[in-house]
Amino acid sequence: MRILAFGEVMLRLSPQHYKMIDQTDTLDMSYSGTGLNILSGLARNGVQTQLLSVLPDNPVGRAAAATIRRLGVRDDNLIFDGHHIGTYFLEMGYGNRPSQVTYLNRSESAFCQTEISESQMKSALLASDLVHICGISLCTSKTARDNAMRLAKLTTELSIPLCFDFNYRMSLVKPDERDSLIEDYKTILKEATIVIGGKKDLTLLLEMPYDAENEPIETLYQRFVAAYDLAYFCGTEKSTDHQAKFVRGFLVDKSQVVFSSHRAVTTYDRIGTGDAFASGIIQGLIEQWSLKEIVEFATTSTQLAHTTYGDSPILTKKFIQEKMNDDDLEVIR
Amino acid sequence: MRILAFGEVMLRLSPQHYKMIDQTDTLDMSYSGTGLNILSGLARNGVQTQLLSVLPDNPVGRAAAATIRRLGVRDDNLIFDGHHIGTYFLEMGYGNRPSQVTYLNRSESAFCQTEISESQMKSALLASDLVHICGISLCTSKTARDNAMRLAKLTTELSIPLCFDFNYRMSLVKPDERDSLIEDYKTILKEATIVIGGKKDLTLLLEMPYDAENEPIETLYQRFVAAYDLAYFCGTEKSTDHQAKFVRGFLVDKSQVVFSSHRAVTTYDRIGTGDAFASGIIQGLIEQWSLKEIVEFATTSTQLAHTTYGDSPILTKKFIQEKMNDDDLEVIR
Amino acid sequence: MRILAFGEVMLRLSPQHYKMIDQTDTLDMSYSGTGLNILSGLARNGVQTQLLSVLPDNPVGRAAAATIRRLGVRDDNLIFDGHHIGTYFLEMGYGNRPSQVTYLNRSESAFCQTEISESQMKSALLASDLVHICGISLCTSKTARDNAMRLAKLTTELSIPLCFDFNYRMSLVKPDERDSLIEDYKTILKEATIVIGGKKDLTLLLEMPYDAENEPIETLYQRFVAAYDLAYFCGTEKSTDHQAKFVRGFLVDKSQVVFSSHRAVTTYDRIGTGDAFASGIIQGLIEQWSLKEIVEFATTSTQLAHTTYGDSPILTKKFIQEKMNDDDLEVIR
Amino acid sequence: MRILAFGEVMLRLSPQHYKMIDQTDTLDMSYSGTGLNILSGLARNGVQTQLLSVLPDNPVGRAAAATIRRLGVRDDNLIFDGHHIGTYFLEMGYGNRPSQVTYLNRSESAFCQTEISESQMKSALLASDLVHICGISLCTSKTARDNAMRLAKLTTELSIPLCFDFNYRMSLVKPDERDSLIEDYKTILKEATIVIGGKKDLTLLLEMPYDAENEPIETLYQRFVAAYDLAYFCGTEKSTDHQAKFVRGFLVDKSQVVFSSHRAVTTYDRIGTGDAFASGIIQGLIEQWSLKEIVEFATTSTQLAHTTYGDSPILTKKFIQEKMNDDDLEVIR
Amino acid sequence: MRILAFGEVMLRLSPQHYKMIDQTDTLDMSYSGTGLNILSGLARNGVQTQLLSVLPDNPVGRAAAATIRRLGVRDDNLIFDGHHIGTYFLEMGYGNRPSQVTYLNRSESAFCQTEISESQMKSALLASDLVHICGISLCTSKTARDNAMRLAKLTTELSIPLCFDFNYRMSLVKPDERDSLIEDYKTILKEATIVIGGKKDLTLLLEMPYDAENEPIETLYQRFVAAYDLAYFCGTEKSTDHQAKFVRGFLVDKSQVVFSSHRAVTTYDRIGTGDAFASGIIQGLIEQWSLKEIVEFATTSTQLAHTTYGDSPILTKKFIQEKMNDDDLEVIR
Amino acid sequence: MRILAFGEVMLRLSPQHYKMIDQTDTLDMSYSGTGLNILSGLARNGVQTQLLSVLPDNPVGRAAAATIRRLGVRDDNLIFDGHHIGTYFLEMGYGNRPSQVTYLNRSESAFCQTEISESQMKSALLASDLVHICGISLCTSKTARDNAMRLAKLTTELSIPLCFDFNYRMSLVKPDERDSLIEDYKTILKEATIVIGGKKDLTLLLEMPYDAENEPIETLYQRFVAAYDLAYFCGTEKSTDHQAKFVRGFLVDKSQVVFSSHRAVTTYDRIGTGDAFASGIIQGLIEQWSLKEIVEFATTSTQLAHTTYGDSPILTKKFIQEKMNDDDLEVIR
Repeated sequence: MRILAFGEVMLRLSPQHYKMIDQTDTLDMSYSGTGLNILSGLARNGVQTQLLSVLPDNPVGRAAAATIRRLGVRDDNLIFDGHHIGTYFLEMGYGNRPSQVTYLNRSESAFCQTEISESQMKSALLASDLVHICGISLCTSKTARDNAMRLAKLTTELSIPLCFDFNYRMSLVKPDERDSLIEDYKTILKEATIVIGGKKDLTLLLEMPYDAENEPIETLYQRFVAAYDLAYFCGTEKSTDHQAKFVRGFLVDKSQVVFSSHRAVTTYDRIGTGDAFASGIIQGLIEQWSLKEIVEFATTSTQLAHTTYGDSPILTKKFIQEKMNDDDLEVIR
Repeated sequence: MRILAFGEVMLRLSPQHYKMIDQTDTLDMSYSGTGLNILSGLARNGVQTQLLSVLPDNPVGRAAAATIRRLGVRDDNLIFDGHHIGTYFLEMGYGNRPSQVTYLNRSESAFCQTEISESQMKSALLASDLVHICGISLCTSKTARDNAMRLAKLTTELSIPLCFDFNYRMSLVKPDERDSLIEDYKTILKEATIVIGGKKDLTLLLEMPYDAENEPIETLYQRFVAAYDLAYFCGTEKSTDHQAKFVRGFLVDKSQVVFSSHRAVTTYDRIGTGDAFASGIIQGLIEQWSLKEIVEFATTSTQLAHTTYGDSPILTKKFIQEKMNDDDLEVIR
Repeated sequence: MRILAFGEVMLRLSPQHYKMIDQTDTLDMSYSGTGLNILSGLARNGVQTQLLSVLPDNPVGRAAAATIRRLGVRDDNLIFDGHHIGTYFLEMGYGNRPSQVTYLNRSESAFCQTEISESQMKSALLASDLVHICGISLCTSKTARDNAMRLAKLTTELSIPLCFDFNYRMSLVKPDERDSLIEDYKTILKEATIVIGGKKDLTLLLEMPYDAENEPIETLYQRFVAAYDLAYFCGTEKSTDHQAKFVRGFLVDKSQVVFSSHRAVTTYDRIGTGDAFASGIIQGLIEQWSLKEIVEFATTSTQLAHTTYGDSPILTKKFIQEKMNDDDLEVIR
Repeated sequence: MRILAFGEVMLRLSPQHYKMIDQTDTLDMSYSGTGLNILSGLARNGVQTQLLSVLPDNPVGRAAAATIRRLGVRDDNLIFDGHHIGTYFLEMGYGNRPSQVTYLNRSESAFCQTEISESQMKSALLASDLVHICGISLCTSKTARDNAMRLAKLTTELSIPLCFDFNYRMSLVKPDERDSLIEDYKTILKEATIVIGGKKDLTLLLEMPYDAENEPIETLYQRFVAAYDLAYFCGTEKSTDHQAKFVRGFLVDKSQVVFSSHRAVTTYDRIGTGDAFASGIIQGLIEQWSLKEIVEFATTSTQLAHTTYGDSPILTKKFIQEKMNDDDLEVIR
Repeated sequence: MRILAFGEVMLRLSPQHYKMIDQTDTLDMSYSGTGLNILSGLARNGVQTQLLSVLPDNPVGRAAAATIRRLGVRDDNLIFDGHHIGTYFLEMGYGNRPSQVTYLNRSESAFCQTEISESQMKSALLASDLVHICGISLCTSKTARDNAMRLAKLTTELSIPLCFDFNYRMSLVKPDERDSLIEDYKTILKEATIVIGGKKDLTLLLEMPYDAENEPIETLYQRFVAAYDLAYFCGTEKSTDHQAKFVRGFLVDKSQVVFSSHRAVTTYDRIGTGDAFASGIIQGLIEQWSLKEIVEFATTSTQLAHTTYGDSPILTKKFIQEKMNDDDLEVIR
Repeated sequence: MRILAFGEVMLRLSPQHYKMIDQTDTLDMSYSGTGLNILSGLARNGVQTQLLSVLPDNPVGRAAAATIRRLGVRDDNLIFDGHHIGTYFLEMGYGNRPSQVTYLNRSESAFCQTEISESQMKSALLASDLVHICGISLCTSKTARDNAMRLAKLTTELSIPLCFDFNYRMSLVKPDERDSLIEDYKTILKEATIVIGGKKDLTLLLEMPYDAENEPIETLYQRFVAAYDLAYFCGTEKSTDHQAKFVRGFLVDKSQVVFSSHRAVTTYDRIGTGDAFASGIIQGLIEQWSLKEIVEFATTSTQLAHTTYGDSPILTKKFIQEKMNDDDLEVIR
């Protein structure tokens, strides 16, 4: 099974020891992006993964590529061009203090400014059995959106299944671009086989009617699957009980809606936890587990991703399964 | 609005990674003191702040001044004299392990040994609209107490409002000095406009009669406000519910007692959290919010100060308000 | 009071900041082992401690010895031989993520491969009032087991009280060695005065019959004490309440079973917490406290050991007692 | 004496331990710029310093301001606007390995994109006795160049002495902008009182004729001083002797050319060493030392700046003078 | 051009800040081996590289693989088996203090204990245009030697050019194995096309007669090339001048002996510098430069490798060439 | 052989990465003192060492004791009293930048304020074959001087050889104490067997007449040995050759003056290098080497101590001898 993901890789800079930026002279550096994160989760379990992305043609871009390979993702389809990489500062929260994210000039990044040629796309698609596109690429620049739309079209033409992730960020979109953006979202949803998202994506972005009081959430999900003729729709829902937080996953196909158990969440590094869920779903589909097993595995994957350093999932299938089967496990030897 | 604080700045040395001193070869260094902490919280929000203090006339004193400026506090009224700075080791607790504080020879510090001249005080007061004095200065040395008492007197003479913080530490006071200390506390309270403290300060230090069973805490607070003719009295109260901890603030003026909600506390670094409350109260008074808004803001400030590194508050008004308005907030972008 | 412990010292390598091994280029290094851990806890309180162990005759072995001395344990009976030290990687868990332990070639370590001579043993026993042997030495290699059995025999011959710790690790034992191992466990239990263990050791390893539904756990413990004519048997039991975890200790002598209170557990570094309990029990027996005091102290010791860095207990008796007497204590000054 | 400097402040990110970027996950963060560096050197010696610059209006910009204050430079004239800060990666060399600098998207920085109003300039000039402008501002963007030119003009109009630093970087200038850039350099040189530069600036940028074989360098320098009617021209010259490196400074006024001794250079962090020279010259002029003393002090300042961490000079006048007077000094107590 | 290297990958553990092991609680971790090092140097310049090696089948082995990929080397031919990795502690020297290396139980490593099957070898050779074998594999265990000999034979049978590196370590070889080892060295030399070594390898290991007084070193080299019918023989020679150290390279083919210039050496991390030379030679041969250019490039590569962190070369061809062409270069922008 | 040293142990705080104090938030912590340093050098080679000192009775004092044990020095004669430890900040120099030392309130330390009883001294002397007293104890406080003088007297009475180290620091002595101090120096010199010092101690402190032009240094040394009837006098002399620095040692007995070779010095951490020399001399006397061997070993020890981290020597006899015998040695395996 060979998975291709398309998406931006950003430089993440983060103070250590839960400090704010102005309290430190040292930053942890890593590289992150939805596509990379999902592939990272799959790569630890024998799945062959490829990232189609654009990095600056300088030592910073090459360091990003080194990190990508270190995570187990192949670098054959990385394009080196330009001089800038999208950068964000993450001031990690602690306990009930929220994390704070500050972006530096993302729109001028090599990824957002470089047109990818059809031949580059075709070469990447050639050896792929599944393609993942992240919706955030539609929001960050015109060039990135065009690249994403052309890739989605090409993927469909080559009859390769497409996995699409809403990942809609209202704050990144200018009001006058909103309508055309929704159109593009709808276009790409029609080409997708698997979609990752949540209630808000359906009701706020797609503006599907939904009366929470009188309709169970399951039927909303099923209407969405039907409307876009999807094989699978999945995502997570959060809840709290006193001071404790919980997450559960859902996985919908044309005939049923399956939920995981509510799993307790303890948070060390919360960015990227949604990507761990997506990665778990794809892993499960590859493994051809039952829907119930898949959603429980993916939810355990997201539960654990709250507790690991960095945005990219780094636990193996075996580790996740041991936790899934024994939530009180304290030491794995 | 220009705030002057008078107080000692100590060198804080702390092992990383929650280690005890004998487990490490590396220490985090910072500089801390009630006056500095309160100013630090105000300085991030456009308030002009000045610290009146004494630091050793050597590279360590100058490094302290660099930290003070870094926090946004002006250094014009720092006096450099002597060779020693009060030092404390903090072994940070984790979870239900308490933190441990060890003082090295505080009484010989430049702050505790240097008399501040009237002209130095006047020069500092000249450009101040509010003065904060911390009660701990009354407890650490005779020279420091004399400095504090003279400054309080001068402040009153110049009709500048005085904010006084009990901060009484019984362990620092010799039994035979207790009576004269209480007298000085009472003298300074009579000159104060705003006082920060708690029930124990009133009943144990000032020996106000109080029958907890038959009198609501509100009336004790109001009796204190009346007795010393204060504009405001404020402080925090703690509570626990199973394994969870909570804090709520109170703010009293001549006509009413206002409480904040009970806010959940998760602790990373607990030293200085009271100073964050005081800072929040002063911020709110400057902003002329309602008492209810002020006490909720100050309590959120102290809630968050439990989760940030170091003794000095470092979050902005905007950050605190986002948390205050949405306690479940996970990421600020 | 002079305590001798016999046991392996391993090199512990651990990523910082809760990272997995493949996320880091830096490792924390420490040295650990049940015998060393127990002595470490005692050494901070004026007990004279000695470790009988074998370390490699190279800079790594000498660094281990430096750590042993740093913990307060004497190095007179350390034997330097061979070139290898047992090594384990610890990927510390966070919140509800379990820790992961990976052993590198423990069986070839100097400890597991070096026969200790009778004269070396006698020299170590000469100045000892109590001897501790850890059951794990019986499981790791034939040479280590022979050393342990000979030492136990010699200890008994010299009428020195023997403290034995089950510490049975099924995963380290080959099926065809199980029977002879159980025989050796039984032999050593007969020579022991104090035994540390738990229900599973009695029912699974020793195969004592026990019907949990119809027999209180107390009588199982008492049957074990009687069967092996022990002075004391002790251990811990875990429980959970919603998301909170608790531990309580038990201490059994020939006439009674005493339990501590259930103490809440917050975990930073969970390896070695059992050794902190054993250390607390021995401390209490040396101090000749009541059984109730001893077990409460030992349980507080294990409660706090969950919150400190490293496998070896490093808190003083005074610190543990302050926590024991005030579980809400936040700062010790 | 009050000094105002105008110039960009960049974010400097640098691996520790002389590593290349792709060898590390941790970066040292500091903030740097010619104007800031020169002020930093002056600020440690009682000179009142102000920086006129533009920083992004986000936590990164505020962290830059905190660093600026920490260095002793006032923040009253910092303008917060936009979202980006110029960023460079520095891979520090070791021994005879050169350092490597990689810029990320400098031209989109807040400094390069924000027009500074005349009133902001006037407000900054109001309390200044000397103004420093760095030539690099002329090279990085059209807006920055316009700001610099307008400020120079205003400075002259207000009869404040102007110190100008060539700092010409050919690599930053597009060929078709070169002619207009040279014109602007000439314009500003005519307004300057003190100029910092070197032979190449005169012969390559200004295209002054010079026959190195038949004309001593002194007369070239003097021709330049005469041509632009400067009070002072100064700079440094490098030389090597076997594997040892040396630097000497020159200082030229209308009547003489004075050289320092050749001082041996050992390099830890070489960026910013020229700024330490400029800072030393200005310090000496303020102190009204002889030209010989000034150039020796400035050259010792640059010699030592090769050995200190960071781009900004951080040694006091006293430290530099002790070294100047005893080049073999090993410990200052 | 596709290069395959066969060799052990060891875990390198090293204190920071030039400390000895017993002075630290933190270790830098990396992975190293002659084969990996040579490939690392080539991988930064577009050469496709593959490592044939055996790593333990646990998180440590997988972390090693992550590092290998991070260096740009493909992991397709890594074999995961066993539980141990060869480990060495490096206490880095400083100035004229030598570094100290301590091995932990290398002979039990997965690499030294695992037989590689013929099909695994063939699969690795399939896509290779050049094979590198390191002589150290012949010295560390019987299994490793057998693997190396069989691979050399297979390489020759498939007519793939073989590059062989003496890397003889007398200390690793037992006296009674010396004769058979020399035989194996001779066998493999006969199959080699390119050989890396030095005078001692020829005179001490191969026992070639050489009278240093009466024969120039060049003819010794040429006799060796002729005796084993090599295409190329190359290596480095050291010299000192007062306190300065120098290195020069030699490259010999059937018709000539070419030397590089003497290049000054400043040392930060000296392990692996020979591998940087070998890497430079192979790079040059791939690029089809003149022998003179090749040896100068390779010598600059080894010169710079003394100044970079870690055993594996990490500088690009461009960086090395800039240094080669300007030895005084201080900053690359 | 059992050595007792008497001397202060100070807390050393030092920024990492050659930073100045105001550039860092992290400090390296160690504990240091002439007596401890000398013992540290001896302890690594099988010499039994004891330190007689006073440490504060708090966690900082106990952490100092842990470091002392870690260095191999016994803690039986450490006295815990008071609350303060002498503290110094070391800003390590780099290349030709001098290091800078800042003392915080040394005179109030537990060591300087605590009288040691005669029984404590006798108990320490009981098991000692040689006693070392450092002259710096005579300079830091009246109490410390009295302790030193009484210990010297007691040592002589018990016929234990006394080793005395001038270590005179003019800056620590008030002018009006100088005369009585010289008297005490002379008293203790008369009791000494071995003295460590240099030319300045003889000519400036003891005011021995010396005409450098007309008298070889050897005869000055010999006159000193004769005057005080010493068994040995020894010390080091520095020289420079271009940019290179050298040290040579001298060792004088009643009949001869022996010099070591001039050994090149490369400096990483220069504090404590004199103590490494003293330690080497004592080691050699214990080993009963020839005077020539002893002084060469001690000089190599001081040469290497310039290159190791911390004030306390940490290299073994074997390491020093390998360097002594091969000054070009690059790696010890």
